[in-house]
Amino acid sequence: MTAALRAEVLARFPGARADAEALARGRTDRSGTPGTADPLAVVRAGSVDEVRAVLAWAHEHRVPVVPRGAGTGLAGGAVADGALVLDVSGMRRIVRIDPVEEVAVVEPGVLTADLDAAAAEHGLMYAPDPASAAISTIGGNIATNAGGMRCVKHGVTRDAVLGLEVVLADGRLLRTGRATVKGVVGYDLTALLVGSEGTLGVVVGATLRLRPRPHVGGTVLATYPDVETAARACSRVGAARLRPSLLELIDAATLGAVAAHTGTAALAAGAAVVAQTDGADAGTATAELAAVAAVLREGAATLEQSDDPARADALLTARRLALPAIEAQAHALIEDICVPRARLAEAVRGIEQIVAATGVQIYTFAHAGDGNLHPIVTWPRTATEDSGAVRPAAVDDAAGRVFELAVALGGTLSGEHGIGTLKRAYLGLELDADVLDVQRSVKAALDPRGILNPGKAI
Amino acid sequence: MTAALRAEVLARFPGARADAEALARGRTDRSGTPGTADPLAVVRAGSVDEVRAVLAWAHEHRVPVVPRGAGTGLAGGAVADGALVLDVSGMRRIVRIDPVEEVAVVEPGVLTADLDAAAAEHGLMYAPDPASAAISTIGGNIATNAGGMRCVKHGVTRDAVLGLEVVLADGRLLRTGRATVKGVVGYDLTALLVGSEGTLGVVVGATLRLRPRPHVGGTVLATYPDVETAARACSRVGAARLRPSLLELIDAATLGAVAAHTGTAALAAGAAVVAQTDGADAGTATAELAAVAAVLREGAATLEQSDDPARADALLTARRLALPAIEAQAHALIEDICVPRARLAEAVRGIEQIVAATGVQIYTFAHAGDGNLHPIVTWPRTATEDSGAVRPAAVDDAAGRVFELAVALGGTLSGEHGIGTLKRAYLGLELDADVLDVQRSVKAALDPRGILNPGKAI
Ligand SMILES: Cc1cc2nc3c(=O)[nH]c(=O)nc-3n(C[C@H](O)[C@H](O)[C@H](O)COP(=O)(O)OP(=O)(O)OC[C@H]3O[C@@H](n4cnc5c(N)ncnc54)[C@H](O)[C@@H]3O)c2cc1C
Ligand SMILES: Cc1cc2nc3c(=O)[nH]c(=O)nc-3n(C[C@H](O)[C@H](O)[C@H](O)COP(=O)(O)OP(=O)(O)OC[C@H]3O[C@@H](n4cnc5c(N)ncnc54)[C@H](O)[C@@H]3O)c2cc1C
Repeated sequence: MTAALRAEVLARFPGARADAEALARGRTDRSGTPGTADPLAVVRAGSVDEVRAVLAWAHEHRVPVVPRGAGTGLAGGAVADGALVLDVSGMRRIVRIDPVEEVAVVEPGVLTADLDAAAAEHGLMYAPDPASAAISTIGGNIATNAGGMRCVKHGVTRDAVLGLEVVLADGRLLRTGRATVKGVVGYDLTALLVGSEGTLGVVVGATLRLRPRPHVGGTVLATYPDVETAARACSRVGAARLRPSLLELIDAATLGAVAAHTGTAALAAGAAVVAQTDGADAGTATAELAAVAAVLREGAATLEQSDDPARADALLTARRLALPAIEAQAHALIEDICVPRARLAEAVRGIEQIVAATGVQIYTFAHAGDGNLHPIVTWPRTATEDSGAVRPAAVDDAAGRVFELAVALGGTLSGEHGIGTLKRAYLGLELDADVLDVQRSVKAALDPRGILNPGKAI
Repeated sequence: MTAALRAEVLARFPGARADAEALARGRTDRSGTPGTADPLAVVRAGSVDEVRAVLAWAHEHRVPVVPRGAGTGLAGGAVADGALVLDVSGMRRIVRIDPVEEVAVVEPGVLTADLDAAAAEHGLMYAPDPASAAISTIGGNIATNAGGMRCVKHGVTRDAVLGLEVVLADGRLLRTGRATVKGVVGYDLTALLVGSEGTLGVVVGATLRLRPRPHVGGTVLATYPDVETAARACSRVGAARLRPSLLELIDAATLGAVAAHTGTAALAAGAAVVAQTDGADAGTATAELAAVAAVLREGAATLEQSDDPARADALLTARRLALPAIEAQAHALIEDICVPRARLAEAVRGIEQIVAATGVQIYTFAHAGDGNLHPIVTWPRTATEDSGAVRPAAVDDAAGRVFELAVALGGTLSGEHGIGTLKRAYLGLELDADVLDVQRSVKAALDPRGILNPGKAI
């Protein structure tokens, strides 16, 4: 059966591959979720028509399809599990940037950083900046509603999407949204599709909102004796109605990993906070930096601030190196809970208790301004392992406790990475039966045969 | 049949009325759409449980239900057409304002301006500011995704809604969204419900995002020889990457009406532009006002700017009086198209051509920063008419031409008022058959018996 279908796919679609390398790549994503079976095949689509043809065929034959961008997802959303992988990362044209309307029209495979760089040529920016911007696609960002560091001020992907071109499960091409800044005609299908993780349609084009590119005011880096003092400092920034363009918190464990990685002990502390400001002009941004620094100083053990571009950038190093430093030491499951901002310190302390109870090492850094924490749940590298290290059950158990903690604090399982396969078992913690029921009926309305990314997201 | 059902409603629900006054009020809204029949009855619900009971009963008996807030809608969305009117304007508690998380939790009947005033006590604002803020409800604002003047900088209602409590057609209570700033779990039902005009569920509670209340920098008012020059000035403001908190354009006809209304000819001009700025502190806001004024000066016949609060407020008078001045002279159908910002002048000229072709007088003012125009299509008052003046067919015809113009310019039928009953016949101009089909399947998924506001929005 699989063999016959595979042969048909290879014969029918020019971009189809089923060699070992293609299948292995399509089987997992950056979360490392192994997938239950090789993909049926991987079709690399080069045009909207090819996407339509693949879906029309799959719909007719009830073949499950997993849309795929760059495969940098951290929730197992692009994991194939035997399905046909529809890779749109090759459709990577920036069709148009309109500096007057401040919109960009792009194909789904455009890399996030490439779009931002193109916008910069017009004094504009594409605001959503996942840490994976250099390697993730706009289509994947839209499907996961990706966030990033500057989202605390400039919004997440959803806030940047004005309209979409989406191929439905049956191969029809749907155009949602509009070319104007405002509009209220019909249901907001655009917003429904953003964050739907490839389960409602395949994004083949997007009209995106750009924003004036602000001047960066500089960076401030402060360390604190403990995470409560650091979190309180972050809260005070909000209470002072300041709007840093980046406000990150790094816990003691992560600071230790960075210190070990870089061979310096400079940041040994209970916690650190990094902030940046931006504004319409340099003066405003610098003035706000001074105001943020003044607020962060209270209770700080050390504090450095700079509006010199090179030094300001260097002050971000500890935050930038957080994940690489951890991954240099251990295997990592990258988590993504979000809690009400005021409960940030409780969340970090709760994670420390999970570490104590389970013996699983967890490092945490957070988009503090959003209450969005990334607990990095790790397990040791061994000398003999091959590249496909299997995640121990204790790690999944510890991650489960982190999810329970998030919900207990009034938070959510995922601030920006999505549910994918990884967190699906925990959905019931957060969404009650009626909400799940409505989600499923929406899914059934758009994809009645259930061929699009089955078993994911909802 | 109606009589028996009406008797049952009156017996069953304490808040039910069917007296002539209640029926007459429920039959129309502020658009003046007459409605095809009196409501079955009007139930004024005082609690979520009452709303649930009404819907469960209506669902069982397949009785159509029209949710209603303050009835200030301009699209005929709350017009009863024989249905049971479910009025939630009496549920008007501000449950909680959390100044740390910057959120408010409210009941649906809270008046928009009351929420903003309550937020102001904490140095916060509720950003969406429809001109009807003093009389419209948050529930109605959510159902229509209301916009306003400061939305150009601070976003529309959709941008302010974090979570909803919604009673579904069958009486189930759905909680969507979250208490955190970010979250990507499941489909974004919150965004789907915002702007759904009461056709997918009844909003009975909302968690809303508040923002730091900015300092106002002042107002600038400029007049121009013609609308093209005025529109170009507005475009230059955007191109200079300035972000006024208000940027409005007023056409010659409207300026004439204001002059007649106030007995002054001060503003006789081809067009006028009003702008305000705001910022985190007074200095920033005033500096941006100066920058905006410098840009607006090019081509202006007159220009006045002020950062004195009283004078700055006075400079807004012409814009504020636009609608009252027109309505003092004539009956008005208030329209709401949106075009790409760069085509604003073409839209105003196109409307002038429609006036010339039809003989129907139309006045236009616009949220220029969003490309959102309000063409006010009028017909004369007569000495003998009663209050329920019937709209002449020529007015609807002229409005239809305005809609066609909007779509021809790459725009949309409605920037912020919604489709309701008024614009439903024109939906096909903007949405293609597949989009309408998907909209209908979403509607069927959430309201399989089609009892919620039938014949509206989609
Ligand atoms: C080092 C690192 C840092 C990261 N930092 C962040 C961060 O700061 N913020 C953040 O939000 N995420 C982050 N991520 C996660 C990841 O990069 C994002 O989820 C990104 O949006 C995925 O894009 P992708 O193109 O790789 O999508 P994939 O991984 O290929 O797919 C992700 C999901 O989207 C679906 N999908 C992909 N393309 C389409 C399409 N065209 N149409 C429909 N569905 C589609 C897939 O089916 C899958 O469910 C990070 C990942 C890494 C490795
Ligand atoms: C002078 C004037 C100025 C205006 N200016 C603006 C403006 O600047 N921007 C703008 O966007 N609008 C404006 N409007 C239009 C109107 O005020 C808005 O559409 C407002 O959001 C309607 O609120 P409401 O409470 O009166 O709703 P209603 O008129 O009662 O209802 C409007 C729609 O929402 C539905 N609805 C109401 N409450 C609920 C609920 N709780 N749950 C589900 N559905 C519900 C109704 O069924 C109907 O479809 C203006 C109106 C007037 C009269």
